[in-house]
Amino acid sequence: MNSSSDDLERYQTHEPENLQERYAHRAAHMKPSEIRALFAVASRPEIVSLAGGMPNLSAIPMEMMAGIVERLVREHGQEALQYGSGQGHPLLREQICDVMALEGIKANLNDVLITTGSQQALDLISRIFIDPGDVVLVEAPSYVGALGTFAQYEAGVVHVEMDQNGLIPDALRQAIKSLRYQGRKIKFLYLIPNYQNPAGVLLPADRRAEILDICRSEKVFIVEDNPYGLLGFNRPSPNAMRAEDSENVIYLGTFSKTIVPGFRIGWTLVPQSLKEKLVIASESSILCPSNFSQMAIAGYLANQPWREQIASFCSLYKVRRDAMLSALDAHFPRAATWTRPEGGFYIWVTLPPEIDTKAMVPRAIAAKVAYVPGTAFYADGFGSWSLRLSYCYPTPERITQGVMALSKVVEQEMSSRGITG
Amino acid sequence: MNSSSDDLERYQTHEPENLQERYAHRAAHMKPSEIRALFAVASRPEIVSLAGGMPNLSAIPMEMMAGIVERLVREHGQEALQYGSGQGHPLLREQICDVMALEGIKANLNDVLITTGSQQALDLISRIFIDPGDVVLVEAPSYVGALGTFAQYEAGVVHVEMDQNGLIPDALRQAIKSLRYQGRKIKFLYLIPNYQNPAGVLLPADRRAEILDICRSEKVFIVEDNPYGLLGFNRPSPNAMRAEDSENVIYLGTFSKTIVPGFRIGWTLVPQSLKEKLVIASESSILCPSNFSQMAIAGYLANQPWREQIASFCSLYKVRRDAMLSALDAHFPRAATWTRPEGGFYIWVTLPPEIDTKAMVPRAIAAKVAYVPGTAFYADGFGSWSLRLSYCYPTPERITQGVMALSKVVEQEMSSRGITG
Repeated sequence: MNSSSDDLERYQTHEPENLQERYAHRAAHMKPSEIRALFAVASRPEIVSLAGGMPNLSAIPMEMMAGIVERLVREHGQEALQYGSGQGHPLLREQICDVMALEGIKANLNDVLITTGSQQALDLISRIFIDPGDVVLVEAPSYVGALGTFAQYEAGVVHVEMDQNGLIPDALRQAIKSLRYQGRKIKFLYLIPNYQNPAGVLLPADRRAEILDICRSEKVFIVEDNPYGLLGFNRPSPNAMRAEDSENVIYLGTFSKTIVPGFRIGWTLVPQSLKEKLVIASESSILCPSNFSQMAIAGYLANQPWREQIASFCSLYKVRRDAMLSALDAHFPRAATWTRPEGGFYIWVTLPPEIDTKAMVPRAIAAKVAYVPGTAFYADGFGSWSLRLSYCYPTPERITQGVMALSKVVEQEMSSRGITG
Repeated sequence: MNSSSDDLERYQTHEPENLQERYAHRAAHMKPSEIRALFAVASRPEIVSLAGGMPNLSAIPMEMMAGIVERLVREHGQEALQYGSGQGHPLLREQICDVMALEGIKANLNDVLITTGSQQALDLISRIFIDPGDVVLVEAPSYVGALGTFAQYEAGVVHVEMDQNGLIPDALRQAIKSLRYQGRKIKFLYLIPNYQNPAGVLLPADRRAEILDICRSEKVFIVEDNPYGLLGFNRPSPNAMRAEDSENVIYLGTFSKTIVPGFRIGWTLVPQSLKEKLVIASESSILCPSNFSQMAIAGYLANQPWREQIASFCSLYKVRRDAMLSALDAHFPRAATWTRPEGGFYIWVTLPPEIDTKAMVPRAIAAKVAYVPGTAFYADGFGSWSLRLSYCYPTPERITQGVMALSKVVEQEMSSRGITG
């Protein structure tokens, strides 16, 4: 054996790619998301970021919040700074039942599990249900963070068609039929009925009822993710799907958008039969959620006019939604279409199919505006001519400026491809 | 078909056991731990609990902590209450490097990932490495929370023999050889070198070096879990194993025992080659750790004499350790043996093999004392004549009282089996 093949052997034995053999199979699905690098760039101050989903905390009364955490430590420090229950603090679980009642849900605190944001609930539900190759049904497009989790559990993610009114029940029926014909095992339907991320659309009450019927009769659990339900601009959103079905719907809630995300407090309300397994899975994952964080949220809910606070969030986001829609109407090429959300954070823009929104990102960044390309919201490479704009965080002036800059980028992109509109 | 077989069919189709088919395979391993029910009972005020591992927060200056969280919201609320980075706050990661330097570790903040307590780090490491059937080596006995996590990832847990000086290097060599001979895939060795949970023993420096050598040459990662390393009563513990090997050791740390557990802040320091996958796994699991919790810990480390605080924790626990050892020496039957920890929270008691410590629990509870039976710390049913006592939380008086009560229970148990001692 000559020295170069010796070198080769050493290389093969000791270099990082050798790690692949040591990883679990699922680790192959742990890849940096397309939008990770984007967010690093988008956070530069000179860029108008229409990319992120950070809530706007300018409406939060910081003095009041400072008082809550100060009293919490002074008066209940021995409890707040200690380990807590795996399922979560009973007082907060009771208050969460009151919050959910606003969307028609009648719940028992024993069926609520506190999680480290909704993301942990997605992780735990995946852990309990998904064997490699199992199917998870999602909207087309769907939330990027959920897609990442489902991928790590090696699910086969199947997108179901949406329109301006959300998931299409007939498309759901068809997808289930076709998957069953192929012998695939469907574990659950994941959907965001209110002001969907990324599409911004609202699922009307009649479709909710129809989808509940389909899933119940097909024995497919529904995972109802509802971060934005209380952030409707003109009227309350329809009752939660969980309000009509306590047996087949797993409901996810969070305080990240209605109070603040920094405490990382979300929850899941689950059918009684699933509760014990979820609590055990959560204990194995984090032992227990932070007592301090839970009691801070509980203190806020008990002592502050939180419904009024949510109303002021709604006003703040409505002004920004209006600024973005006005700017799109005034400046964007006619060949593009977009959704007109009645709540939440996001607008979904569809360009002519010749445009590749991922390839367009560097040109947008050069024009000092950032967005998320549509492919991030699909597990199957679809979405290349769509993009998500978020209006939650920047000022209305910055939103207008950003949309104007993006309009020019899109126009150039179209004209370079000979598209008029 | 008559009506009773109809009923039977309906029963089989709709009852909860039908859920089994809908779960993932791993869900079969999500069972309530033996000690869950025990902890509910042990928390009653009339019971002296020598069962739990709750740190004693009586030494924490609550006024000072109240001021830290109050200023955090008032001065940095927009950051502290917002989403943060998936890897964790850079300032805290830098401070963590200073904390680890106390045990000889030279680390770069880029290789530190903040986790929701060490438990989340255990979960993430399992996620990255464990395919069903892979082997994880652990001490005999080992930490119950780690065993639960490894089980959920369907690892084959293999215990390696310990003595009064911790894991025995020759037993490790033998275990690896035998498993390799069987064709098993060994993913990592999990161990707690300092004041081990549950055994309370300390691994001396020469064994650390030998175990590092074995694992490096056998290409088995070491997961070094170190919650108690700074809680040595007489002298500093030996350098961390990670101090001598940055390539093959994954280090877990936590503030739960040196500051407070209520913020749920732990960390892992990983070989550079593993870092990206761990961050992605964590983002998929919880999106990001709490900015508020991280900045509260960072504020404490920056503004308080935290080394002195750890010293006062050590004094507090030493007094309790002394009380427990004195009571054991004075009252416990001679047929029993126990470890004499030089730090940490736990003493491991071994009774005559005829005694079943799990069956003895109700009699101990009736005598108003609680402990954890030894089988909880084994994945293989071993440990039935051992038990763990913790001295961290109760007052010295209560500890003495609890040990005296337990001595009587053990004596009765022995005499009913005709054992003298």
